[in-house]
Amino acid sequence: MISKQKIEYIRSLADKRGRKLAGCFVAEGEKIVSDLLKTTLHPVELYYTGKLPATFELPAFHLPNILISEKEMERISAFKTPASLLALFEIPSYQEIELPVLNGLGLVLDGIQDPGNLGTIVRTADWFGISDLYCSPECADIYNPKCVQSTMGALARVRVHYTDLTKLTRKALNQKIHIYGTFMEGENLFETSLDSPALIVMGSEGKGISPELLPYLTRKISIPAFPAGTNQLESLNVAVSAAIVCAEFRRRVQRD
Amino acid sequence: MISKQKIEYIRSLADKRGRKLAGCFVAEGEKIVSDLLKTTLHPVELYYTGKLPATFELPAFHLPNILISEKEMERISAFKTPASLLALFEIPSYQEIELPVLNGLGLVLDGIQDPGNLGTIVRTADWFGISDLYCSPECADIYNPKCVQSTMGALARVRVHYTDLTKLTRKALNQKIHIYGTFMEGENLFETSLDSPALIVMGSEGKGISPELLPYLTRKISIPAFPAGTNQLESLNVAVSAAIVCAEFRRRVQRD
Repeated sequence: MISKQKIEYIRSLADKRGRKLAGCFVAEGEKIVSDLLKTTLHPVELYYTGKLPATFELPAFHLPNILISEKEMERISAFKTPASLLALFEIPSYQEIELPVLNGLGLVLDGIQDPGNLGTIVRTADWFGISDLYCSPECADIYNPKCVQSTMGALARVRVHYTDLTKLTRKALNQKIHIYGTFMEGENLFETSLDSPALIVMGSEGKGISPELLPYLTRKISIPAFPAGTNQLESLNVAVSAAIVCAEFRRRVQRD
Repeated sequence: MISKQKIEYIRSLADKRGRKLAGCFVAEGEKIVSDLLKTTLHPVELYYTGKLPATFELPAFHLPNILISEKEMERISAFKTPASLLALFEIPSYQEIELPVLNGLGLVLDGIQDPGNLGTIVRTADWFGISDLYCSPECADIYNPKCVQSTMGALARVRVHYTDLTKLTRKALNQKIHIYGTFMEGENLFETSLDSPALIVMGSEGKGISPELLPYLTRKISIPAFPAGTNQLESLNVAVSAAIVCAEFRRRVQRD
């Protein structure tokens, strides 16, 4: 059983404003909830419909867990086909770190509005040991249900900051951090030197990197099409571009 | 104005069965329709709501174009927020090619069911000069509205074949084509030799590569996480993995 008030509260977390007010976000589905329960994130409450898979384990500490009907789950879920499991977690707050790049590499996202792309980029960052991701306020909110779904637990290991990118890149430049921007035309990613520590700036597919950030870029780089010099009508998906650039940075470091 | 029959016909194209019956698919939105009109695909009909942007050009040849109301557009569109423009195109039929790999590289998708991922992979293939993409019958249909939307015109330049992958890989192996499969554990992509001509096989995120295909793989490869040897709980998104592998193949060829 679940009260009307609680239903309204959980539904309000589907919106950014509701999440900000509550300081909580929702994760739905066995895999993502299981994954997040094993991380440093703080779970608040767990709702399930009684069809919990045998493989699912409740955490060792006490976590309020509430059996609800499938109809109730439909009412609190953000998805058309709800899972049997839904959990509320606290939105973590990250202290501003002095040097914005750990492990040699950080990612900066300028206006990435597609939640699926943002989620995929967080997974990629996690894979390549990038602990900090900086988003402009126009980016999709990482705690929206679609993003949470597509991050697959990487959400708990990558710190996603929403911040003024002009200030961030200016500060990074003062700290001798190299700032690479990806463009349709720039130096060939595979042939240019890639120095660390570095921030990689990705612009949105529609608008590219904001003009305000251009003065702070130390180099423009570009992923070469094949065969070289092909007149490309299209661009790569932004999550794909980010992944190819991160992979190349890490390949060079591992080779050296 | 548009007849009831026509509305039903266009709506039927949202389903794979309807598209197969009609031999047509739907593209929605100014950018994708403009792009596809410039390709070798055959347009059949164009519908618009009278809010056509000034930048849009009708093709030089005669193409039936029908002004409809916004309400009518809502009825024929597959999207919640319809664009001002919708076009029907013939589904191209590709002859089976004797040697399945042109330009040294081909992609094989085994059970990729997410339309967004499939569309993104088609864009990536286009970027890296991969002309042929082989899908198992379980893959998403490339002509479904979401796929068409996410391919951004690359749809017209990459031939997407739906075929029996066991037969395909057996035939390729007989033709001395190298077949690389991507796995969580395999040889380090960046350190192993990559030979051409090659097919790259991508399995689904949930199930991986089908057991039936394993005997035909010449090598198992893996994208190394950073730092090396990190105990990875998660995997990369399949479209991201495909892109990193394709980029590495092309990087080696361009360098040589």
